[in-house]
Amino acid sequence: MIRDAIEKLIRPAELGHAHCDLPCGVYDPAQARVEAESVRAIQERYQKAEQFKTPGETVEDYKARCLAIKELRADMVKEHLWVLWTDYFKPEHLAKHAQLHDLFWKATKEAGLAKKSQDPAQGKKLLDAIAEIDKIFWETKKG
Amino acid sequence: MIRDAIEKLIRPAELGHAHCDLPCGVYDPAQARVEAESVRAIQERYQKAEQFKTPGETVEDYKARCLAIKELRADMVKEHLWVLWTDYFKPEHLAKHAQLHDLFWKATKEAGLAKKSQDPAQGKKLLDAIAEIDKIFWETKKG
Amino acid sequence: MIRDAIEKLIRPAELGHAHCDLPCGVYDPAQARVEAESVRAIQERYQKAEQFKTPGETVEDYKARCLAIKELRADMVKEHLWVLWTDYFKPEHLAKHAQLHDLFWKATKEAGLAKKSQDPAQGKKLLDAIAEIDKIFWETKKG
Amino acid sequence: MIRDAIEKLIRPAELGHAHCDLPCGVYDPAQARVEAESVRAIQERYQKAEQFKTPGETVEDYKARCLAIKELRADMVKEHLWVLWTDYFKPEHLAKHAQLHDLFWKATKEAGLAKKSQDPAQGKKLLDAIAEIDKIFWETKKG
Amino acid sequence: MIRDAIEKLIRPAELGHAHCDLPCGVYDPAQARVEAESVRAIQERYQKAEQFKTPGETVEDYKARCLAIKELRADMVKEHLWVLWTDYFKPEHLAKHAQLHDLFWKATKEAGLAKKSQDPAQGKKLLDAIAEIDKIFWETKKG
Amino acid sequence: MIRDAIEKLIRPAELGHAHCDLPCGVYDPAQARVEAESVRAIQERYQKAEQFKTPGETVEDYKARCLAIKELRADMVKEHLWVLWTDYFKPEHLAKHAQLHDLFWKATKEAGLAKKSQDPAQGKKLLDAIAEIDKIFWETKKG
Repeated sequence: MIRDAIEKLIRPAELGHAHCDLPCGVYDPAQARVEAESVRAIQERYQKAEQFKTPGETVEDYKARCLAIKELRADMVKEHLWVLWTDYFKPEHLAKHAQLHDLFWKATKEAGLAKKSQDPAQGKKLLDAIAEIDKIFWETKKG
Repeated sequence: MIRDAIEKLIRPAELGHAHCDLPCGVYDPAQARVEAESVRAIQERYQKAEQFKTPGETVEDYKARCLAIKELRADMVKEHLWVLWTDYFKPEHLAKHAQLHDLFWKATKEAGLAKKSQDPAQGKKLLDAIAEIDKIFWETKKG
Repeated sequence: MIRDAIEKLIRPAELGHAHCDLPCGVYDPAQARVEAESVRAIQERYQKAEQFKTPGETVEDYKARCLAIKELRADMVKEHLWVLWTDYFKPEHLAKHAQLHDLFWKATKEAGLAKKSQDPAQGKKLLDAIAEIDKIFWETKKG
Repeated sequence: MIRDAIEKLIRPAELGHAHCDLPCGVYDPAQARVEAESVRAIQERYQKAEQFKTPGETVEDYKARCLAIKELRADMVKEHLWVLWTDYFKPEHLAKHAQLHDLFWKATKEAGLAKKSQDPAQGKKLLDAIAEIDKIFWETKKG
Repeated sequence: MIRDAIEKLIRPAELGHAHCDLPCGVYDPAQARVEAESVRAIQERYQKAEQFKTPGETVEDYKARCLAIKELRADMVKEHLWVLWTDYFKPEHLAKHAQLHDLFWKATKEAGLAKKSQDPAQGKKLLDAIAEIDKIFWETKKG
Repeated sequence: MIRDAIEKLIRPAELGHAHCDLPCGVYDPAQARVEAESVRAIQERYQKAEQFKTPGETVEDYKARCLAIKELRADMVKEHLWVLWTDYFKPEHLAKHAQLHDLFWKATKEAGLAKKSQDPAQGKKLLDAIAEIDKIFWETKKG
């Protein structure tokens, strides 16, 4: 699917847009989603630290590592979403999807909350927000 | 598919493995592939710089930017592949897929070559190597 | 002024908000502005490369370095703006400043354009966009 | 040799901004100060964790996040100070401000201490050291 | 010794290889070893936190910082090892040292374990694995 | 030698100092030197680009990559030197080696010059400056 999208991107007919992209023109919400899956999985493991920790590791240390790694993963989610918002989406997409700005604002705020929350239900909300963006993204690719 | 994999990963029955993972246990060759798509797209645009450059930008500057950005993207490919190799794959996977080490060595070397090559056919070889790894990856997920 | 802002931030009366911030609650559009000044200065020097290059350095090499460094600086502008947008601004700010989303979208897109443009007038537009954000930022601090 | 180039760079006509060195010539101690404000704010919040933590977050987790984030912020302070010291300041500045090396050494060491200290009074000392550097910086800009 | 190695690297007779290297051709397992020494030293200090912590710092905070810093250092070990494996070693080295792939796989996995382990004996195993790689590295330099 | 140094570092008798170190207390000027060797090797290859470039790569592209990579390597040199200066060296070292501040200032400025210079003789000067620091470093380790 991505490959098709690229073929289309570099077709002469689309050149009007192509020069507005960064050199590569390759975007995929999967990047944000994989990191968000990671965030949720960390929240789940934090809840069952006793079960997931390495033998010999204390529960406290395991949880401290969960927090430190989740901080980075949640940042990656933000980063990938911000890049999509600023670099991929164009005014004509906004014209069709008026909620775009708000969606990204809320999704990136949710990623920020993920740093503070150890609740997998919060991670689920982050994944849902990304799924909404993903849906719009692929609609604009068809269009 | 990823979601299923996660559910499985955190099932008690798999705990024997879970302690070998980093806290999250989420891996996906899509991360390497997206960056490699980017590498190939840059190689294609480098070849048709006149057509893809922003109006007002010189061809020389456009190409210099292609090179600088491709350098980073190719590094990301390496990074994602290395993480898969070291962190995801386990001895039992190697037992079934004896070519694993060589596959990763060649794929990461191909990513290194991508820094030096402006030929989309080279980028295609990189994508093919990642596709081979992807295939094995999903087989191990089924197993 | 920042110091005042901090004192205010940590006043019990503002605790309702404080929990929404990242631990520190310190934001300043100056961070984005300094990087954007850097971008514009590079564009100016690129135009007068003969004059600015180090003796012994070729004009081509000087320009190539301008491009590589500008790429990074423009990324820093984006980064600082994205953090302000997602982490500092709250729904009540948006209620008063309806143009907020669009301002940030355009400012970060302008930062993206700065990678492709060697024209200091473009850098000026980026600085103007940041100045607009800066104005709103300090109004919200007063409020 | 570079110095010649610099002399040229700092021609009165260009003093508005250009005044210095390699590609951009833009420096501002505000960058270090903002990060140090952040460090102090984190130390303050650490002390009142109960009050600042997000509802649902444990005090332990909030404090662990304070430490992890402070570690990074303090590193940023160091980085910005080192860049000023090596890249902005020139032998003629040192001739007028003999204490320059020691000031920077102590300020960066203070930034290192900030990683270990949860006391806002320590953060205040770091801010004071940066204020001293800031004063000299702006004197050299006038000169 | 490194200097000699470089002189050799850039001799015309070796040009057959040189084009396979990244531009610089400088590699040294010392980079991985220094970071691994750091990992082991942190594990040692974690064990004697009471003795090593800064006065005024709690043992809990000191340990949390140990974990956060060790996480990064262990990542650096991996990074340096991966670069050696992919970028330095060539098929003719593999022909002579059939255990190469496995050595690197195990060494990087050991670096991953170092994130979870607070036991200096584990850090010792990591250092031993790097020492084995170091031995082969210098043999290939002689060859 | 490093190992001995570490054993000494963690001896109770040295605890007076140990609390001033970052957790690990492991330092080695080899880190700066390896990166500087890299810088010099790139300068050498830039001069003989025709000879070193990959077949199929243009000389212009090879040189552009040399510049981009040298920029990063020279930054690493600075980084490693700054860390040594601020984190390793203590007032008692300065008392014995009064030239310490100036040595580091000049060495890091030389690393900055390395970004602009394609002359291996410049890289040699950088390596010489690091060698001076290395000598003092090991004297302080004996002391």
